[in-house]
Parts: sequence; structure tokens; C-alpha cells
Amino acid sequence: MKTSPFAPKTLPVLAPIRGVKLAACEAGIRYQGRKDLMLALLPPQTVAAGVLTRSKTAAAPVLWCRERLAQSRLGGRARALVVNAGNANAFTGMRGTEAVRSTAKAAAQAAQCQMDEVFIASTGVIGEPLAPSRFLDHLVTLAETASDQPESWQAAAEAIMTTDTYPKLARWSGKVGGVPIHINGIAKGSGMIAPDMATMLAFMFTDAAIDQAVLQAMVAANTEPTFNSITVDSDTSTSDTVLVFATGSAGAPISDLESDAAGQFNAGLHAVMRDLARQIVMDGEGISKFVTIKVTGAENDRAAKVIALAIANSPLVKTAIAGEDPNWGRVVAAVGKAGEAADRDRLSIWLGDIEVARNGEAAASYQEAQGAAYMKNPEITIRVDVGIADGQARVWTCDLTHDYISINADYRS
Amino acid sequence: MKTSPFAPKTLPVLAPIRGVKLAACEAGIRYQGRKDLMLALLPPQTVAAGVLTRSKTAAAPVLWCRERLAQSRLGGRARALVVNAGNANAFTGMRGTEAVRSTAKAAAQAAQCQMDEVFIASTGVIGEPLAPSRFLDHLVTLAETASDQPESWQAAAEAIMTTDTYPKLARWSGKVGGVPIHINGIAKGSGMIAPDMATMLAFMFTDAAIDQAVLQAMVAANTEPTFNSITVDSDTSTSDTVLVFATGSAGAPISDLESDAAGQFNAGLHAVMRDLARQIVMDGEGISKFVTIKVTGAENDRAAKVIALAIANSPLVKTAIAGEDPNWGRVVAAVGKAGEAADRDRLSIWLGDIEVARNGEAAASYQEAQGAAYMKNPEITIRVDVGIADGQARVWTCDLTHDYISINADYRS
Repeated sequence: MKTSPFAPKTLPVLAPIRGVKLAACEAGIRYQGRKDLMLALLPPQTVAAGVLTRSKTAAAPVLWCRERLAQSRLGGRARALVVNAGNANAFTGMRGTEAVRSTAKAAAQAAQCQMDEVFIASTGVIGEPLAPSRFLDHLVTLAETASDQPESWQAAAEAIMTTDTYPKLARWSGKVGGVPIHINGIAKGSGMIAPDMATMLAFMFTDAAIDQAVLQAMVAANTEPTFNSITVDSDTSTSDTVLVFATGSAGAPISDLESDAAGQFNAGLHAVMRDLARQIVMDGEGISKFVTIKVTGAENDRAAKVIALAIANSPLVKTAIAGEDPNWGRVVAAVGKAGEAADRDRLSIWLGDIEVARNGEAAASYQEAQGAAYMKNPEITIRVDVGIADGQARVWTCDLTHDYISINADYRS
Repeated sequence: MKTSPFAPKTLPVLAPIRGVKLAACEAGIRYQGRKDLMLALLPPQTVAAGVLTRSKTAAAPVLWCRERLAQSRLGGRARALVVNAGNANAFTGMRGTEAVRSTAKAAAQAAQCQMDEVFIASTGVIGEPLAPSRFLDHLVTLAETASDQPESWQAAAEAIMTTDTYPKLARWSGKVGGVPIHINGIAKGSGMIAPDMATMLAFMFTDAAIDQAVLQAMVAANTEPTFNSITVDSDTSTSDTVLVFATGSAGAPISDLESDAAGQFNAGLHAVMRDLARQIVMDGEGISKFVTIKVTGAENDRAAKVIALAIANSPLVKTAIAGEDPNWGRVVAAVGKAGEAADRDRLSIWLGDIEVARNGEAAASYQEAQGAAYMKNPEITIRVDVGIADGQARVWTCDLTHDYISINADYRS
């Protein structure tokens, strides 16, 4: 698989988060010659918050995390995170539930904590039983070798990859309530990426001391314009998991969502989530163009997002972008199929800053050569005003190429 | 473009419908060296019924036909049908409306009827102005040369093609109320095919004498399991048009939807619509597999169809089929994202007659080699039971191949 043209030239170097230690290893779950299992150890007072897939066929680890988050809301703590790649442990029936429990048991033993303090995520093939029997030995070794150094963060990000062509890391540091705070994030995702959410795992870690309820409100709100505003192929996965762990080791507690400190922390969390969400699209399977779709003038923000996603998920729009064809007629058709209010005779469309259509027909000033030249850019912005009211939305997506077909027709991911 | 592997070996020969005469010619609208304009002349007592796209950005000819159908319900007659390929006259503003009016005027002159007795459809590129000035001369010639012979039906079916790789014709003959009745149909469609409806034009002609209200009820009801149960690429067009013209020349009037005669006629109409709908999918852009998705056990029929379409439109399911990979995990994920009730632990999946998953996990009897062998068939049936209630649905689709990308990234259709 060739590396995405949007892969970062150098990977971010993540600073230590006091008390958070990571390690990864080759457990041989599916892949050969690469790491596929990671463990993160979390200090005693760590609180967790998160958002999980709304898929009706959610995987066993998602159901497990749902219980853990319910417990977190009641004061429960998080002491370990275990993630494997290669097998999603989805649609594996009772054996899937058993596999999660025995993984939690092994991790609890390795991390010297309670089973219900262990969070678990799995990504990879659906429907094949996951045999975690060998996990115990691996997890003990991982716990012994876990470290807070930059190499450990990178190893963890690499271990959770499936069809990803690069590991995804992001960091933020800043003053929150006068105290220096760090937020580190790692994520995976490349195909089966669509809101609600993606085949996407994202884990954030911070030393902030923050109430679980406040953290939960923030991660939920930030998910909407970040991980829930991306789509590669419109396919939602059974395993989407976004978790944030706050160790509290930095002190300066945040317990009021409306406080300045909460605002400062939220800005940092949003930046990390946004960075990771964009990195996931930039590694979209077969990507040759990174595409931003902006919709304005819709009935409300929800309607704008429905229209933006209809454009972003249209195979005809995506293939036109792959072919560098300024075929804005396909954008019109996508707006039309979205089912939301749009005034055909007030609709306007821009490619970047070039107005291509105005008030329901080709703009008088528009020359096809301009559009064709614009489409050669690696990053494309399509803006549509639907002429109804003030609703707006922005989503990120990529084009649909021969490489997407090769990756998904020839490779069982 | 290579011809679909599902193209019929020989084209159906359509019998004359008394009083219906057709002709087609090269008007040079966009394509060179092929017919792109057709005219059908209809006898004086012809009634029309139909269904049009629900796109919010419907093309000018669709808005025209909407007015004509409203008039039909009030006793209006149909005397001519004009269809062009190469330019959809969509998103062309006031000029689009003018182009439709001047086409109607020219056709009325050629057919010696009123403007509001002319039905119009256009298919092709969106957003480019259609210049119908040259249509007048062509339409006069077409009216003079129109015939009811098989060659004319074939020429008409060829003239409305865009990315289609074969013309689509269907026929039915049978006794209705003791009288021999004929139904002929032609259609086009290949990409931008999705319910509500497809980039799809379909025109049926019959000599039956049938009340407009009865005919309208039948075409609307039959659209649901035929043209509204197909998808190639989930993209709904701005121009979808299904029209039925009944000349009444066979006598034996049908005015009661519940009568035996109505039932007999409806069976024939359904057969023609079903045949054309399947032909459209069988010419799906880049098709290598014809796929039937059946969903049972859903909350109701509507929910079953939502799930069936989620499977049929999943790029990951479609690419797996293209790769002959029995990757039923992707079917599970598509069920999960549909948002309709599904019981993960009662879900079962079949590839053809092979049970691959049962009660939420891989079936004990299933061997991957069986699934892999089945996927080599040119026609694939995937059945899913979601374990909730009795709702069911069936949709037809095709796979997603490199050729789809080539057709849509490299060719402006």
C-alpha cells in the first residue's frame, strides 16, 4: 500500500504525561512483523470520558466501554487501556464477550487494578473470533516495559493501525487556570470512516484535573465538529471509540464547565481532536485529494450538515475530484438528493474562491479553465450556499480513486 | 467503454402499439455520430401517468412534466414525447425553462397538437445551457418519418442513452378483460442511479383503455418495488422520469382499480417496469456482478428497505463483491449503520443458500471456501435476517469496480 501523499513529513514528538506509561508489542493477532497490541497504564485518580459508535451491531469491546463510561459517571476510575489491531472482536457472539472479559482480567492482573478499571478497544476484521489467551503473557511484559517517553507514544500509535499508512499523533500544551497542562492524542482510521463515527479509534490523555462530567460534556461537544464531521466512504464501523483520560496530576481542578480554565482546556482538547480527525481523512483509503465541503444558507445547522455529507459521500462528486474535473453539476445533484430544503434558483457554488454557479445557473463570469486549474490543487474546498436561511456546516472528506478499489476489493481489512 | 457482461444477447423486438409512432435522429447536442433526440407521437385519446424525481434541484423538464401530469389528472391528453440525451437541462435557470417551452412549441408544431400535450425529458450533463433552436427542423423531420415498427422502438431506446452500454427495451402482451393488450417500454440509466429515483428515464406505452387515475395509482405502486428498489451508486439524479402513455385504442375500458381487468393489466405493467429496472442495474457503471439484497425480520417493510439500501450502497460491501471476497463482516457493519432496529445476537446472513452467520456469530457449519466459491458467480444474492419482526425488502444493485472509477473520474457524463 502506498503512503498517503498527505502523510506528515515528521511525526509529532509527544511529551510525557506524568503517570501515563505505554508499551506495544507483536502479539501476532493477524499481521506478521508489526506491533498489534498496546497497553496504556494510568495513575490511580484517572477519570475517563468518551463517545462510542451508535452502530446497531456494535462490537463487544464497545459494549464493554459503554459500561465502563456509565461507571465513570458514577465516580469510577480508569487504570488501563488495552487496544489491539487485526481483529475487531465484532459479531463474535458470546465468545466475543468472553474474549473482552478475559482481556480485562489479564490487563487487571498486569496493571494491578480491578477489571472494571480497564478500557478495551479492538479494530480489524469483523466476525472472526478473537483468541485472547496469549494476551496475558504479553500484557505482563508490556506493563513491565511501559514508559512515558516519546518512542512509547509512537509505538502505541503504530500498534493500533490497520489500513492506515501512517501513525496519527497530536499534542497540545498550554496554561489552564495558570497551570501548564499537556494533552496527547493518538488515533487510527483510514477506511470505513463516516460520522457516528468512523472506524476510528482515538485516545487522548491529559494531566489536567477535571471533573468527569465536565470532561464528558467537552468530549461530546467536540466530537460533533471533529470526528463526527469526517467521512471517507460513508461506512460507519462497529467499533468507533473516542476516549479521554485525565490523570489529574497537574492539579488546579476544573469543575465548572463555564469557567475560564474549562474554556482554556476545552480549546486544547478541541485542537487535538481536530488535528486527529483531519489526519484520519488525510490517510483516507486511496486518497489523492483532501476535500473540505462547506454549506451555508441552509434551514439550520443540522440541515447544512446533511447536505454537506450528501456532497461528501457522493461517489460521483468524489470521482470527479479524483479526475480533477470541475463537474459542479454533480454537486447540484448531491444537494438535490439530500432531501433538505434548498432553493434551486438561489443556489450558488464556489470552487475555492471561484464562483462557478450563482442563483441556480452557471455564473456569468465563470470560465471552465479556471475551475480545471483549481481542481489540480491537492486540497480542494467546495462551498455551497443553498439560499434558505443561516444554517451552516463544514465536513472533511477525500476523493474516490482506483486505489480505494484496490485496497478494498483485493485486501480483507 | 466496454459493454456490460449482463447485456442481453439479443434485443427484444417490440410489437406495434396502434397509433404510437417513434423516430430518432442525430441532433448533435453533445455526442458525435449517434442519435440523441427522439420523438414519440401519440394518438388523440392518450392519457398519461407518471412519477418524477423528488430531488430538490429537479431539472426544468421535470418541472414541466409535473405540470403536465397535474393537467392529466384533470383530463388532459398526451400527444407527444420528446427526449434528448447529452444535456439534462438541469440547473440552467430561466434559460432552462425557456428551452423547455421552445421545445414544446416546436414539438406541438411538428405533431400538430397543443404545447401542453407535449411531455419532455432530458438527460446528460448538468449546468450547461441547452440550445433547442435547431430542434424545430429536427422535430418536423422526425414527425414525418415516425413509425410503429420494431426498428423505431430500438432507435428511440438508443437515442436516450448516456453512459448506458446497451439500449433497454421490454414488452408484455396478454389478455386484459378478454382483449389482447400490449405494453412496450424503453429506459435509460447506468450511473447516478438511486431510489427517488435513478438518473433514469423510463417510458411505457400501451393500447389499453384505462382511466388516468387508475393508471396513476398503478405506476406509483409499481415504482416502489421496481425503479425505487435499485441503486448503482446511491446518487439520485435531477431528471428521473417515469411515464406511461395509454392510447385506449384496444377498447375494453378499465376504470376500476379493483377489477380483474385492472389486475391483469397491472401484472403486465409491473413485469415491464421490473424488467427495465433490472436492465438498468445490469448496465450499472463498471458492473461485474449483479447483486440482490434481501432483508427479512425487520421492524417493518420500510425499515427493511433502509437496511437493504445501506448494504447495497456500502462501498465496502460493493468492493468486497467486486473482489469476490465473502467478507460478510462488512454486511454486519452496513446493517449496524442503517440506524434501524436490529438484534445483533439474532442476526443471520446467507450468501445464496449458504448460511454464513447465525445468531450474531459465524455459523458453525460455514467454511470460508464455500463462500469464496459462491462469490465467483456473476449473480450474487445476500440475505440478512435482523431478528426483530416481519418486515422485508429486496433491492438490486451491482458491485463497485475500477471501471466505475474510470468511467466517472475520466469521463464527464
